[in-house]
Amino acid sequence: MTPVVPEGGTIDLRSDTVTRPTSQMREAMLRAEVGDDVYAEDPSVNALEAKVAALLGHEAGLFCVTGSLANLLGVAVLVQPGQELLCDARAHVVRAELGAHAALSGITTRTWPSADGRVDPDLIMDMAVPDAGPYLVSTAAVSVENTHNFASGSVQRHDQLVELSQRCRAAGIGLHLDGARLWNAHVASGVELAETGRLFDTVNVCFSKGLGAPVGSMIIGSAELITRARVLRKRFGAGWRQAGMLAAAASYAVDHHVARLADDHAAARALAERGAVRAPAAVNPAEVETNIVVFDSGERSAADVVAAAAERGVAVSHLGERVLRAVTHLDVSADDAVRAGEVLGDLLAPAQAT
Amino acid sequence: MTPVVPEGGTIDLRSDTVTRPTSQMREAMLRAEVGDDVYAEDPSVNALEAKVAALLGHEAGLFCVTGSLANLLGVAVLVQPGQELLCDARAHVVRAELGAHAALSGITTRTWPSADGRVDPDLIMDMAVPDAGPYLVSTAAVSVENTHNFASGSVQRHDQLVELSQRCRAAGIGLHLDGARLWNAHVASGVELAETGRLFDTVNVCFSKGLGAPVGSMIIGSAELITRARVLRKRFGAGWRQAGMLAAAASYAVDHHVARLADDHAAARALAERGAVRAPAAVNPAEVETNIVVFDSGERSAADVVAAAAERGVAVSHLGERVLRAVTHLDVSADDAVRAGEVLGDLLAPAQAT
Amino acid sequence: MTPVVPEGGTIDLRSDTVTRPTSQMREAMLRAEVGDDVYAEDPSVNALEAKVAALLGHEAGLFCVTGSLANLLGVAVLVQPGQELLCDARAHVVRAELGAHAALSGITTRTWPSADGRVDPDLIMDMAVPDAGPYLVSTAAVSVENTHNFASGSVQRHDQLVELSQRCRAAGIGLHLDGARLWNAHVASGVELAETGRLFDTVNVCFSKGLGAPVGSMIIGSAELITRARVLRKRFGAGWRQAGMLAAAASYAVDHHVARLADDHAAARALAERGAVRAPAAVNPAEVETNIVVFDSGERSAADVVAAAAERGVAVSHLGERVLRAVTHLDVSADDAVRAGEVLGDLLAPAQAT
Amino acid sequence: MTPVVPEGGTIDLRSDTVTRPTSQMREAMLRAEVGDDVYAEDPSVNALEAKVAALLGHEAGLFCVTGSLANLLGVAVLVQPGQELLCDARAHVVRAELGAHAALSGITTRTWPSADGRVDPDLIMDMAVPDAGPYLVSTAAVSVENTHNFASGSVQRHDQLVELSQRCRAAGIGLHLDGARLWNAHVASGVELAETGRLFDTVNVCFSKGLGAPVGSMIIGSAELITRARVLRKRFGAGWRQAGMLAAAASYAVDHHVARLADDHAAARALAERGAVRAPAAVNPAEVETNIVVFDSGERSAADVVAAAAERGVAVSHLGERVLRAVTHLDVSADDAVRAGEVLGDLLAPAQAT
Repeated sequence: MTPVVPEGGTIDLRSDTVTRPTSQMREAMLRAEVGDDVYAEDPSVNALEAKVAALLGHEAGLFCVTGSLANLLGVAVLVQPGQELLCDARAHVVRAELGAHAALSGITTRTWPSADGRVDPDLIMDMAVPDAGPYLVSTAAVSVENTHNFASGSVQRHDQLVELSQRCRAAGIGLHLDGARLWNAHVASGVELAETGRLFDTVNVCFSKGLGAPVGSMIIGSAELITRARVLRKRFGAGWRQAGMLAAAASYAVDHHVARLADDHAAARALAERGAVRAPAAVNPAEVETNIVVFDSGERSAADVVAAAAERGVAVSHLGERVLRAVTHLDVSADDAVRAGEVLGDLLAPAQAT
Repeated sequence: MTPVVPEGGTIDLRSDTVTRPTSQMREAMLRAEVGDDVYAEDPSVNALEAKVAALLGHEAGLFCVTGSLANLLGVAVLVQPGQELLCDARAHVVRAELGAHAALSGITTRTWPSADGRVDPDLIMDMAVPDAGPYLVSTAAVSVENTHNFASGSVQRHDQLVELSQRCRAAGIGLHLDGARLWNAHVASGVELAETGRLFDTVNVCFSKGLGAPVGSMIIGSAELITRARVLRKRFGAGWRQAGMLAAAASYAVDHHVARLADDHAAARALAERGAVRAPAAVNPAEVETNIVVFDSGERSAADVVAAAAERGVAVSHLGERVLRAVTHLDVSADDAVRAGEVLGDLLAPAQAT
Repeated sequence: MTPVVPEGGTIDLRSDTVTRPTSQMREAMLRAEVGDDVYAEDPSVNALEAKVAALLGHEAGLFCVTGSLANLLGVAVLVQPGQELLCDARAHVVRAELGAHAALSGITTRTWPSADGRVDPDLIMDMAVPDAGPYLVSTAAVSVENTHNFASGSVQRHDQLVELSQRCRAAGIGLHLDGARLWNAHVASGVELAETGRLFDTVNVCFSKGLGAPVGSMIIGSAELITRARVLRKRFGAGWRQAGMLAAAASYAVDHHVARLADDHAAARALAERGAVRAPAAVNPAEVETNIVVFDSGERSAADVVAAAAERGVAVSHLGERVLRAVTHLDVSADDAVRAGEVLGDLLAPAQAT
Repeated sequence: MTPVVPEGGTIDLRSDTVTRPTSQMREAMLRAEVGDDVYAEDPSVNALEAKVAALLGHEAGLFCVTGSLANLLGVAVLVQPGQELLCDARAHVVRAELGAHAALSGITTRTWPSADGRVDPDLIMDMAVPDAGPYLVSTAAVSVENTHNFASGSVQRHDQLVELSQRCRAAGIGLHLDGARLWNAHVASGVELAETGRLFDTVNVCFSKGLGAPVGSMIIGSAELITRARVLRKRFGAGWRQAGMLAAAASYAVDHHVARLADDHAAARALAERGAVRAPAAVNPAEVETNIVVFDSGERSAADVVAAAAERGVAVSHLGERVLRAVTHLDVSADDAVRAGEVLGDLLAPAQAT
């Protein structure tokens, strides 16, 4: 995923992380009360932690500088050094966090294959080996991603999550949710946030992707786990001080920017549909479930298509040699999305047509 | 250092980390342009990094969520896992960062004793063993703290830093400056920031202590070292997104809050002087060089004195069983400081006088 | 794999690690010249390292206390902390080394599924992402196990190893061979050791499994890689001193115990065939390629069958809730193997038959 | 400590690790019963562990491939990642183990200065900060070295060890003994091994230094700690298999080679006395307490003197730019020692005299 710097006037679809705070959000930040969050004395942070933990059906939350940190902490409180985390082979925790769980927490990972990013409880439980004794690696936790970033923003099926949760609990295996885009899954599926949240021991949600806050994620769980996460946060050099203004932005985003994710999903579908007009082999609109559209660049180099699109004012990412990704968000209008679909459709249309 | 939560009306001298952003600083934040700092596209962050790196006499800087992270990165780019960092036995890097350099970076440490926190180049170079071969630990870097937090905010002598720098460079040993309060050292000593900065390979400066910004520190060095630090920052889960508003606050702080540190130093001296009137054995005003005042609680438990002071509206920390620390900052007026000195002097006065 | 301690007279098939040195091997040990191997001055160790490295088609070798250590070193010289090793989901390196690659070397792993333990170059290269840039995990090496312990001792196909090696080299990805039982693969397939060895950057071979030496494995590769492995060996606390007597045993084993592995393979086949007479659903003799036989315990608990077999004088291991493993080796005669097959066949025969 | 390879006929005083097993010891090895020590089934290993643990006044022991590993395990069961070990600045654990405690166990260290290597309980307890709360590093253990390798083989004073032990236990701080040469301390001081051993939570003793076994050390402590150490030993790749022959050598060494260490001490004293005849400023015989003699090379480079001595058939080490070390052991006769003293005295004699 090598980003290309967008020019002025560019439609930036590289990621939903690029959103900028709205003026109302900035006003909320301006008014925020603050305190020293290392001492748990920032009233805006404390209020956000209480609000979001309750929303997810848990006791406690810890405001974190990134979703990567929230994942690091959420996993580290469930898995000891030398124990094992299971996840799928394209999960953010093993692909996009620079090996941090191994390099910093000493956690070993095994991965299962998945075409669409959705969990298969049978497959996972067949791999898992809890309490493996003094000679073999013990499976201490499973991580699930919802929506699944590198699997086109696919949404987990609730019945599968319920089954996985029951079986993990019966086996004494922890369950972590990388819910950086759980807001999108909630809007797309209609499943309540707490209904999903309660299935997991630790939950990461992000405020700076689709929700549009400038900085911040949260790790959520029991009071006991979050107390341990707080100490680890300090060790990771992430015990920030007057984070209240960022918390105020996040709180505003939770209050005002969740329901509107439906617009991003519609825009993503429209983008895919327009792209499929010219390049039907490159993208299947029926597979677009949330705000992420993946294109297959076929014979072309994905990097070349990214460069060509940038020249036409559309910034997208490439995830592999033949894979492009476009992500809609609150700074992308419906018209922008359609325009981007046209550009990508043109670039990916069959050779005889160009 | 167990903090006591201050009540309304309390004079909070627990640390200069507790400062709250001023309204002008908030205005600067409101107006800040932002972008995605993971992609190095946040204009406010980029401007801050360029400005502060130049101020310290270096090529490049990286905006970090805390001073602990800036220390972690600054040391990690100089020392490989299994190599050695030397520092003094009360340095923040070995006492107040929860073992992160060992636990996360695999760096081993040896420490030298120091009564006043100032470096002794002979002592350090006698300990150092660069390029120790395949059987012994090699000294890869030395860390210096200026001002020295747990040594009463003492200021390093410039001639000693110059000598240490020359000898480290001759020996091929890296030199890191934990300059979380370098601004205070600069104001107290009159030595230019760049004059100090150039003696070191990596420099950490903090915006959220005496300078009063809500969140943020910076690690500074050559372009090559900072490029490596940027990748590590992401692995540590600290690659934040639209950090520009925090950068704007930090930039405002650098422009407007450095010179005024002299007021904090005067207030600290006044606090110590007033305390010494009643409790001359507990504090020596002549030793107060910057904004930190340390009291010896003598026969009394420091924790008890902290609690008694809190009841009288003065919040301080205890650093050990018999050691109290009071730190002045921009939310503490000259009158507040004198009042706090009175309270502490009363509490620490010889027994017959109470 | 919870071992059951064998009683006197037991046929011990728990693992080929249980072999005891023969009297001729002990004589070779008695006569060995020794020196300090930390200083690379043990003549017997040096001779063994030269001999075995040449046998595997490489420049240099390092004598190690276990195969786990040889794997740790062989992988660590190819993969930096935070980079990725790919291997299959039942590989010894991720299942049976207590998470050491993550916990001690900071290496992250992803795994591919494999029914028979054999590599599929297409599957592996589809997963691999070399040089992934500053945001994503880079694949630095692939590990292959031959024979594959937890896949019934299956032998890798040489043409697939050749293809995998070519494609890894083209992509700049390192290739490690966990050849703890490469001797068995060599005897079963007839492929020369060096022909296999040269396909890999680092090779682990073990002397204390089928070859029957009391202690020791070797990591093999280029002189440059092995020099780095030697330093790491010392850090892992495994820089032993006068290891020459152990090296003499290993050298004797290489000279005298390789060809006879064919006997172990025949015994394993005979064991499986005899077991299949009574319990045809539990074991397929056609799948026995080397010295490992795996039984499916069906409805029965594998642990219970292990216990029942032990009472009848046959010690085997269980690898999972329904999986038993029997391993032949030089302390197991052909008659022992047949007898063990009878016992296991009886225990695993269909219920109506008991 | 760069070793110089000794020529034939050389008196090798580089370290007492260079000893070679005697023919009686080899005979003991030849006769040893063995089993699989990963399963704790090697009778010779089990017997050695029971014997030596009892000798040191503890419940259990674990036979290890090196003293570095025994230190790694002994410390790791007392100190969690991110917690602190205190030791002196020239201790083997921080100087000669390649940073393993930090790099592999995540343990942070602070060091105290010591002229003669002997512990000062006041100094140590002033540094220690047990149970330091969620912001500061907690001191979890103290390590003591006896005899002290890099402090000329000095012997700890028993009364100081007793006081340190009492104060550590009162404070809840663990105490580890690096007793690689405790046998020498015992012989020199007359203090019973168990009397010293019981003062510590974990004790490392080595069989391959002065005692002359080819390979092996042991970590000793409570049954609970040693059970945990056994799992860690496997993770470190050091769970060896049929180690019984090495255990038999170690057992022989404990039975037959302890009392004779007095001869090594006498030889070391004679070496120093002879050296002081010509070079009285370089060595003080009165400081030689055990089998280690340290020479100050004054104006000369220690490396040059090492090279010159090697040409005259005397192999010694250099520990620093101006420090040489000679170590006596069972392969060095009284005459050899006197001869070595002459050579070193000549080389280090004042310039006018040469």
